[in-house]
Amino acid sequence: MKQEYMELALKYANKSYKMDEVPVGCVIVKDDEVVGYGYNRRESKQNPLEHAEMMAINQAAKKLKTWRLQGCDLYVTLEPCPMCAGAIIQARIDRVFFGAHDPKSGSFGSVMDLTQIKGLNHYPEIKGGILNESSKELLVEFFRKKRKQTSAKRNV
Amino acid sequence: MKQEYMELALKYANKSYKMDEVPVGCVIVKDDEVVGYGYNRRESKQNPLEHAEMMAINQAAKKLKTWRLQGCDLYVTLEPCPMCAGAIIQARIDRVFFGAHDPKSGSFGSVMDLTQIKGLNHYPEIKGGILNESSKELLVEFFRKKRKQTSAKRNV
Repeated sequence: MKQEYMELALKYANKSYKMDEVPVGCVIVKDDEVVGYGYNRRESKQNPLEHAEMMAINQAAKKLKTWRLQGCDLYVTLEPCPMCAGAIIQARIDRVFFGAHDPKSGSFGSVMDLTQIKGLNHYPEIKGGILNESSKELLVEFFRKKRKQTSAKRNV
Repeated sequence: MKQEYMELALKYANKSYKMDEVPVGCVIVKDDEVVGYGYNRRESKQNPLEHAEMMAINQAAKKLKTWRLQGCDLYVTLEPCPMCAGAIIQARIDRVFFGAHDPKSGSFGSVMDLTQIKGLNHYPEIKGGILNESSKELLVEFFRKKRKQTSAKRNV
């Protein structure tokens, strides 16, 4: 685990923030090289699959020319949802480092833990709470801004 | 539920079969119109995200210009894996009709049931076992062929 990669993931999360998207960023690293990155673009792309992790996995598979992302580590600022946690398992990613826990849909420990489901093809190593405060802060700020916008609209 | 849509999903599964892919096919229907289809292309695309359901959801979002696939039904020949079941929930798809149960990674009842996880944003209605025999037969035939190829290689 290298903190600089989580810092990079946070930079991508900031990119989502500036696009008025729920701020989540992700990087995938193999042999100390970034092979994929992503940031949440669900609203701007109007596509439910455009989470940060999915964009990063897609890029890494294209770069490495294989669906098997063995030897890869994934850094993401928020605990993956069921879709992204499932994609990480499909991609055979070795290790996952995430920032903030997600009590609403986090699937590596919060609402469930996919690594505890028996019979799957692969189980990545998981470590949560990396740069937790910075990851959380960005999300809290985003939702605060959203609420302000909503209440301003209401008062027009 | 209309059987003709599952028959169409089976045709797409056949397309995967001919490409030497694990044969899974999918269609998404809204107001009695097919708005997306997909077939497993993981090996040919060398991309872990290229499951039948993901291709179909991607298409439907592009066609309907929204990430919210409310009012859509999804037909798929095999019970969705964690990634695809999670994507279905992300996409707010109303109803899922699947063919064969998947004891290895089926996430709407087999290895787990995502609709039983508390706190998620959306819960689709699920019905499995539609055209079960035809869906299963194609998969069994695929794995039989694969084993033959492997043993032929071994005997060279």
